[in-house]
Amino acid sequence: MGINLVEAAAFVGGVISGNENVTINNLAKIEEANPGDLTFLYMPSYEKYFPGTKASAILVKPGFNKSRNDITYIEVKDPNKAFSKLIIKYFSPEFSLNGIDSTAYIHPTATVGKNIALGKNVVISAGCKIGDNVKIYHNTVLLENVEVDENSLLFQNVSIREKCKIGKRVTIHPGTVVGSDGFGFFTDEKGIYNKIPQIGIVIIEDDVELGSNVSIDRAAIGATVIKRGVKIDNLVQIAHNVVVGEDTVISSQTGISGSTKIGNHCIIAGQVGVVGHIEIGDNIIIMAQSGISKSINKPGQYFGTPAKEFKTTLKLEAHIRNLPEYVDRIKDLENQLKVLKEELKKFNK
Amino acid sequence: MGINLVEAAAFVGGVISGNENVTINNLAKIEEANPGDLTFLYMPSYEKYFPGTKASAILVKPGFNKSRNDITYIEVKDPNKAFSKLIIKYFSPEFSLNGIDSTAYIHPTATVGKNIALGKNVVISAGCKIGDNVKIYHNTVLLENVEVDENSLLFQNVSIREKCKIGKRVTIHPGTVVGSDGFGFFTDEKGIYNKIPQIGIVIIEDDVELGSNVSIDRAAIGATVIKRGVKIDNLVQIAHNVVVGEDTVISSQTGISGSTKIGNHCIIAGQVGVVGHIEIGDNIIIMAQSGISKSINKPGQYFGTPAKEFKTTLKLEAHIRNLPEYVDRIKDLENQLKVLKEELKKFNK
Amino acid sequence: MGINLVEAAAFVGGVISGNENVTINNLAKIEEANPGDLTFLYMPSYEKYFPGTKASAILVKPGFNKSRNDITYIEVKDPNKAFSKLIIKYFSPEFSLNGIDSTAYIHPTATVGKNIALGKNVVISAGCKIGDNVKIYHNTVLLENVEVDENSLLFQNVSIREKCKIGKRVTIHPGTVVGSDGFGFFTDEKGIYNKIPQIGIVIIEDDVELGSNVSIDRAAIGATVIKRGVKIDNLVQIAHNVVVGEDTVISSQTGISGSTKIGNHCIIAGQVGVVGHIEIGDNIIIMAQSGISKSINKPGQYFGTPAKEFKTTLKLEAHIRNLPEYVDRIKDLENQLKVLKEELKKFNK
Repeated sequence: MGINLVEAAAFVGGVISGNENVTINNLAKIEEANPGDLTFLYMPSYEKYFPGTKASAILVKPGFNKSRNDITYIEVKDPNKAFSKLIIKYFSPEFSLNGIDSTAYIHPTATVGKNIALGKNVVISAGCKIGDNVKIYHNTVLLENVEVDENSLLFQNVSIREKCKIGKRVTIHPGTVVGSDGFGFFTDEKGIYNKIPQIGIVIIEDDVELGSNVSIDRAAIGATVIKRGVKIDNLVQIAHNVVVGEDTVISSQTGISGSTKIGNHCIIAGQVGVVGHIEIGDNIIIMAQSGISKSINKPGQYFGTPAKEFKTTLKLEAHIRNLPEYVDRIKDLENQLKVLKEELKKFNK
Repeated sequence: MGINLVEAAAFVGGVISGNENVTINNLAKIEEANPGDLTFLYMPSYEKYFPGTKASAILVKPGFNKSRNDITYIEVKDPNKAFSKLIIKYFSPEFSLNGIDSTAYIHPTATVGKNIALGKNVVISAGCKIGDNVKIYHNTVLLENVEVDENSLLFQNVSIREKCKIGKRVTIHPGTVVGSDGFGFFTDEKGIYNKIPQIGIVIIEDDVELGSNVSIDRAAIGATVIKRGVKIDNLVQIAHNVVVGEDTVISSQTGISGSTKIGNHCIIAGQVGVVGHIEIGDNIIIMAQSGISKSINKPGQYFGTPAKEFKTTLKLEAHIRNLPEYVDRIKDLENQLKVLKEELKKFNK
Repeated sequence: MGINLVEAAAFVGGVISGNENVTINNLAKIEEANPGDLTFLYMPSYEKYFPGTKASAILVKPGFNKSRNDITYIEVKDPNKAFSKLIIKYFSPEFSLNGIDSTAYIHPTATVGKNIALGKNVVISAGCKIGDNVKIYHNTVLLENVEVDENSLLFQNVSIREKCKIGKRVTIHPGTVVGSDGFGFFTDEKGIYNKIPQIGIVIIEDDVELGSNVSIDRAAIGATVIKRGVKIDNLVQIAHNVVVGEDTVISSQTGISGSTKIGNHCIIAGQVGVVGHIEIGDNIIIMAQSGISKSINKPGQYFGTPAKEFKTTLKLEAHIRNLPEYVDRIKDLENQLKVLKEELKKFNK
């Protein structure tokens, strides 16, 4: 490889100091770095690793105490982001899948663009439309009339059910399911559940990334929509007719119930549950494991089950921790009052 | 298509008013409907969409304020259920998979019924029994001696492990696993975990639906049983030796721990956790994100971690929200008492 | 089959009493056992099934009240563990997959050991190394340069992404994904998320078991590491750069966020969430549905969101249940104080 540090510093707008000629071959975490590695430091909790790191160069914030002189420093406003930009520049992985494997199946009525790659045992069913430069890895199955627009990447063992639409530059990780039936039933007089056919679709817009083992259900009618730029982590559940707004991020194991609308630029942490038929506005941050049972319009941080504004939940949590003390104070008051009453009785006599 | 509204109204037992001759081509949600669509209204929170909907016809409750005269009304007791019945009648999807694909594998000792459909790369292992009219989509794998009874539908990338039994009219969505090993180990003197072979099976009875990416573990010994009519949503975990009773519904991301028995006609909402070795009776409703650590016999609604009767949890939650006020009242009492004591001291003098 | 009870009792170090010559053909749970079955009893809550069990023999603790004389007893210190050892000895399942199926693909640059078994449509990509006696079931896909060491067992529809390393005697259940991208992005000035290429790998050490539909993300840089002897249940999320220490057990639907380190011999129950960038020490038990937001060093049991020592959470939970009573006591104090003040006023006059 051989990264030129002067070039790298210039690329991230950083200021280099120390040996500019050290050869960088790899990027590494500060606690795991070896000679020849470039690392970075931005969280105070990792500063303990600085004295011992074997890295040859390090990205740090301006003003960092450069106490070692056997390491090259690049000072930059946001070392984390700068490090990410260097990964993108020097280490972006190439996905080598090329051409259409002889075991891949393309239905005669399907259309495929230029320069596509289909792995082994891929199934492209009737009426599918596959855009230019799409890569689909082994054993992934697209049912009828699925559309995958250009430059999208589907890993192995992905399942896309009929009629769903995948936009441009979408990445879907292994094991993910798009377009399974929404969970819709009605009960008859005996309490037996009758299935409501789920005749809608899923629309995944451009620049979306779906993690592994995600489930996104098709709409009962209409469409479940994951809008442009949304990033969804592993094992997330998106129910029928949900709409997730642009540039919203949803962390692992969160579930969004049916017909709920999530706004733009929201951050939903892991293991959150959101009930159905509500609206979450734009720029709302929901913290891990929260349970959202009502619509939220006001931008801000929310936490807890049922969720409240973050500060409110923290305050209540502090009160809960203090409950033993409060109870002692109540007992104390009761005792004092008893004494006082006795005294007063004496007066009365 | 062309739905005749008079026929549709009669089918759902509704009363039609307005233009009976409008042509209906599609069903749609009220906020997304276009001319030619039939829609429905049953939740008050969606009434705001009524003035603006472009639908040509609408299912409403009797007595609905028919303020627009450019839309045809069908008044019916339960518009939601009526709408579902119309989806079933007019829009039930047909799954077009037909015949046995040349890449599907059927072991010579397996037996298959009439009119089955097997997609590409399906694996039917030794000793399997496949009933009439079963459809199994691409890349789904059945290990040895699996039985799938008539009219069942398995989507792509489903995994069924050896000896498991699937009933009649069962639907299994993509990515779901039936018969993975139960999580059973014992520790030796060094704290190393030894695997307990999981030699039981899974029985999925008739009319069950399993969502996508569900995991149902085989029993340690005996069987994990999902009884007739159970509906299980995406990403649900069913541990070894669990029994789920008839017509019970389990929502997404819920987990049922080992050897627990769930009764009939229960509704378990999303992200619920149930510990092992307990019994949940019939007709019990458990609300989202609850944690169930003890058996429950009394029918009713339960909520919270640890779960209590719904009303109790709501009441306690209100008390928690009021904690800052209670603490103020304690402080106030303390102050008043102090003043009182001072006054009393004066008397004493 | 025919288990000799005298031999079985000797094998588990138990004391046999009753008819030693009964023929045992099967193992069963006490409530489901039939004549010819051996069962066991160790949880008091299952003693109710003893009078009615049809089992021919039973493993019990020493001193058990042997009230029935139509059943053979084996008294043993730990009936549960003894039963497990008998399953291992007499009923360990054999996975019959043998040989390399003609539809399995091995890239010319991949190397495979002796006596391996590859099922239908298995994909072994360029540069993979497969050790002796490895079994890989149908439709499982290994991308480039994956290593699977000897005696490991991968079930169907498993996805391993490029460069990940799987140790010896590892079991991976269906639908599990190893090496999907970590959830790493940075935002630009417009709030649009840019992907940080995840260029690290996953290392699964020896004797690990991964359940079904598990997601283990590859590291951003370096490795996500699952150490020797770890057991991970279904639907668990392991984020990028997590390290899970030796002989730690993680139950279903738990999620560990990025860069967190879990110690050795921990037990993490189901539906737990652990935030990123923290350290959990050795011998720590985290109870179900807990939320861990800070590092924990002190061995012990933790529970709740945010998690506290188990006893503390139980105590606070009791206080929460008592809140209505506490509020009544506050009201009572307020009333008494009012009366007292009135009385004191009279004195003043």
